[in-house]
Amino acid sequence: MLRTHTCGELRITDVNKTVVLTGWVQRLRDKGSLMWIDLRDRYGITQLFLEEGKTDAALLKAARALGREFVVKVEGTVAERVSKNANIATGDIELKVTNIDVLNAAKLPPFTIEDETDGGDDLRMKYRYLDLRRNPVRESLLLRHKVAQQTRSYLDSQNFIEVETPVLIKSTPEGARDFVVPSRMNPGEFYALPQSPQTFKQLLMVSGFDRYYQIVKCFRDEDLRADRQPEFTQIDCEMSFVTQEDILTTFEGLIRHLFKTVKGIELKEVPHMTYADAMKYYGSDKPDTRFEMKFAELNDVAQGKGFGVFDSAELVVGICAKGCASYTRKQLDELTDFVKKPQIGAKGLVYVRCETNGTFKSSVDKFFDEIELSRFAQKFNAEPGDLLLILAGEKDKTRKALSELRLHVASQVGLRDKNKFAALWVIDFPLLEWNEETNRWHAMHHPFTSPKPEDMPKLQSHPGEVRANAYDMVLNGIEIGGGSIRIHDRNTQQLMFKKLGFTEEEAQKQFGFLMDAFEFGAPPHGGIAFGFDRLCSLFGGAESIRDFIAFPKNNAGRDTMIDTPSTISQEQLNELGIAVKGTIK
Amino acid sequence: MLRTHTCGELRITDVNKTVVLTGWVQRLRDKGSLMWIDLRDRYGITQLFLEEGKTDAALLKAARALGREFVVKVEGTVAERVSKNANIATGDIELKVTNIDVLNAAKLPPFTIEDETDGGDDLRMKYRYLDLRRNPVRESLLLRHKVAQQTRSYLDSQNFIEVETPVLIKSTPEGARDFVVPSRMNPGEFYALPQSPQTFKQLLMVSGFDRYYQIVKCFRDEDLRADRQPEFTQIDCEMSFVTQEDILTTFEGLIRHLFKTVKGIELKEVPHMTYADAMKYYGSDKPDTRFEMKFAELNDVAQGKGFGVFDSAELVVGICAKGCASYTRKQLDELTDFVKKPQIGAKGLVYVRCETNGTFKSSVDKFFDEIELSRFAQKFNAEPGDLLLILAGEKDKTRKALSELRLHVASQVGLRDKNKFAALWVIDFPLLEWNEETNRWHAMHHPFTSPKPEDMPKLQSHPGEVRANAYDMVLNGIEIGGGSIRIHDRNTQQLMFKKLGFTEEEAQKQFGFLMDAFEFGAPPHGGIAFGFDRLCSLFGGAESIRDFIAFPKNNAGRDTMIDTPSTISQEQLNELGIAVKGTIK
Repeated sequence: MLRTHTCGELRITDVNKTVVLTGWVQRLRDKGSLMWIDLRDRYGITQLFLEEGKTDAALLKAARALGREFVVKVEGTVAERVSKNANIATGDIELKVTNIDVLNAAKLPPFTIEDETDGGDDLRMKYRYLDLRRNPVRESLLLRHKVAQQTRSYLDSQNFIEVETPVLIKSTPEGARDFVVPSRMNPGEFYALPQSPQTFKQLLMVSGFDRYYQIVKCFRDEDLRADRQPEFTQIDCEMSFVTQEDILTTFEGLIRHLFKTVKGIELKEVPHMTYADAMKYYGSDKPDTRFEMKFAELNDVAQGKGFGVFDSAELVVGICAKGCASYTRKQLDELTDFVKKPQIGAKGLVYVRCETNGTFKSSVDKFFDEIELSRFAQKFNAEPGDLLLILAGEKDKTRKALSELRLHVASQVGLRDKNKFAALWVIDFPLLEWNEETNRWHAMHHPFTSPKPEDMPKLQSHPGEVRANAYDMVLNGIEIGGGSIRIHDRNTQQLMFKKLGFTEEEAQKQFGFLMDAFEFGAPPHGGIAFGFDRLCSLFGGAESIRDFIAFPKNNAGRDTMIDTPSTISQEQLNELGIAVKGTIK
Repeated sequence: MLRTHTCGELRITDVNKTVVLTGWVQRLRDKGSLMWIDLRDRYGITQLFLEEGKTDAALLKAARALGREFVVKVEGTVAERVSKNANIATGDIELKVTNIDVLNAAKLPPFTIEDETDGGDDLRMKYRYLDLRRNPVRESLLLRHKVAQQTRSYLDSQNFIEVETPVLIKSTPEGARDFVVPSRMNPGEFYALPQSPQTFKQLLMVSGFDRYYQIVKCFRDEDLRADRQPEFTQIDCEMSFVTQEDILTTFEGLIRHLFKTVKGIELKEVPHMTYADAMKYYGSDKPDTRFEMKFAELNDVAQGKGFGVFDSAELVVGICAKGCASYTRKQLDELTDFVKKPQIGAKGLVYVRCETNGTFKSSVDKFFDEIELSRFAQKFNAEPGDLLLILAGEKDKTRKALSELRLHVASQVGLRDKNKFAALWVIDFPLLEWNEETNRWHAMHHPFTSPKPEDMPKLQSHPGEVRANAYDMVLNGIEIGGGSIRIHDRNTQQLMFKKLGFTEEEAQKQFGFLMDAFEFGAPPHGGIAFGFDRLCSLFGGAESIRDFIAFPKNNAGRDTMIDTPSTISQEQLNELGIAVKGTIK
């Protein structure tokens, strides 16, 4: 190695040692006769020291010629610092420099390499290799490394085998759009990049692998919303001879292991909540359970008193904001404006203040007297000082709107602490959901999810009521993983494809290999996949996944650093037997 | 779990326990009144036992209805076996069956699920999920899992950080053909799949990551020779502030760790050999050093004696096959035929038998007397009983042909034992090689490899003589990894691109981001990549990599199981803005 030590290594016990360090010039302080340089590498920062009169003049001159981000090799003697810095591990010492070699000069970076940088998003993306030098970004990727290590460690300990599944697979129209790859050797034919290794991991179960995992890249050609990436990483797992309960237990184990080893947090037991309850009490299939603020339904106390909005509503439902009775008129107007936004879609907001003196004050005083309002309050177990916020209307839409309001209010009153963690299993998802656009049933999870046996009879009569053996893990209101017990017999799988509008021929062409496999001794099996990028960002307490990916793409799916996607040569197109439309030669 | 134990778990200490097993019916033996069933899962085989009179009649009937590869759940009591089987871990016990549930029936598999199967390659590929049930294939993939685990364990211990680099990158014409991916959001533009994460790992060094690794999928759209796969896996690594020696030491450490932990073998220190020596003494840049049989050059003793073939040759060179003087005329003719094959290309073969009585007998007795032949023998330190095999001709071609002969003879005499391992570093590769086809210099390793500083002056005058800081690791005559110290300054990189025939514009368009990065403080760095599939197959003692890949493609690049590549819909093509030639709509 060009160095004897790293920049994070030297301590007071190393005083008087002659050492060689390498790294980047983080900062230069030149006080005339005294000069300090902060030298940085991945492991830390060490202070270099030069003194006029004591340091060789040529060396001083060389040091003064250095600039930010120069790469240097420095020899010197470790000395105790006069003024120590308790904030860094090497803060007790400095290096009295005896030689400096410039290994590589550096142009002035286009933005500052500091925790808080002056670089905007576009500039940081273009010079991602400089952005990666900043502590917060590097630490995010170190955290990712640690989460991956501990994921493997846990799954290895549970007898899971890591198996790599192929990246060049087959395009299937179900689900999101595939990226495709033209095959030169098979002109006119294409591979597709996997949206998940779903069918392969199921085949591994048919093969008897029993327990499979993989931390694996997956691909979706979707129009990118903020914080979606065309390539993303999953922790992908599958188990044989299991019930749903076995999977929940095993992967609750994983998440608790990760919290313990990566964050030093003993996560509480992960509660189970049915999809029906999640919708009823939180208006969402991924409730944030860091705080309560459960929905209370008020139809029986709110209807029949002459208030048309309530009387005509399918559902009257509200939340109780603890201690928020003191909200001002302006604050309440802001909440009303919030729920009336088009993306929330409520028509209005009713509030009831539970005053500290035991009386009630509401926006519907005209229709409800004190006793009637006290019945509202009882539904929430509200106390003096609380604020009730009530919406009314069509059931599903109203729940959805109230869910948004719940999160909005919780954020306002500081209940969504990114350093607090609440995990939850949501279970018993519906098998199918009706899609108005395509006018057919879609699989809520995917077509390989098994219906609950006791609901099978409803598959003909009431398809929307059939529950699946499907589950999601939710962390702080964000879905971090989901899975299901799979179908493992040909007949059920065929029935499922039929329900989803596949003709028999289509089903056979696309998934014949899987249905064939089910006939050669497929064990009962199920699995789960976690969104690895998102999981890491939650562990890092960050809103965005972008800094937990070394080289992310922007919202247009571009990597502006390497400038891709880009055109390819006509020769390449010819070899592949394809043409770009409008430029056909 | 549906089971209480696995099929590999029960021992004599479990006798009298009531247990539940799940698995596949491997074999049924029905002796009328007694019946045995071998039940298999990933963990082993347990014998089930049923006895007429003692076992319930309905249960016996159910057992008799089972077929090979049925998936069953079996309840029973553990009993000591009368005739024990020392070959399997559960051989002391059997299960007296009290209940059988058929979890899934199975059609008769198209080939036998045994260590030696009757299935041909095509059938096994089409039903890969059944082939994966066979012990040798499953064990190969378990070995792969273990090699991956131990690779990570070693690199983690050496402070390497695992970083995922992107799969959707940019096409570059240097090297093999890229697979490309049309971008729907950027019509007319394409991503490419990486042939290696080369530039990204170098950027990570510029970012100060210091030590990076990744076990990563790479892609090459090459015409597939036997045992090449369009997607393959690399152990990809890079380090900063290193000399070549540091890299060799670190990755000799990796390979020794893998041998120790995976194979239980203490590998000897890995010797270093220059490319020049490898060519001179073995005629190959990847010599098999499990055995000696080094080349000896004979020009000084063989030329000038009137034998035209030798006299006109640039090089007269041979090997000594220990103890092979007894080779018959027929065997010697076979060797002559071997070297004369078009792919070997020698014109003929000269032999000298060192007879056990101390005399010599050769195919060129006419030109060389005993004393002259004894001088040949001395060059090899040959002993009575040895056989000298000599080729003559143009230097490079003759060395290459002799290298093939050396391996051929070594195989014949059993020197290439797949359970013996010899690793070697080949160093000091040439930087450039002349390509007759393109009529220009090509990078022997890749364009990012640094020349040896002392050879830099020759870059203008004698480009072919410039040595690179490049190295390969060779195991048993197979290159398992290679790497180099990289260029880390813009000027050298530009010079290199120029030497390789890039215009300045081409270089900037394709690799401008890297050369830009070199100007912002790039540290000296270097790295290596190992072919993971090949490494695993060598550890498994196998010729082919195919069984060390869960779902390989065939030699036409097809996955016949899922039937890909395949056509995609016109709608998909339209969305992507591309057309298949000849079918443009």
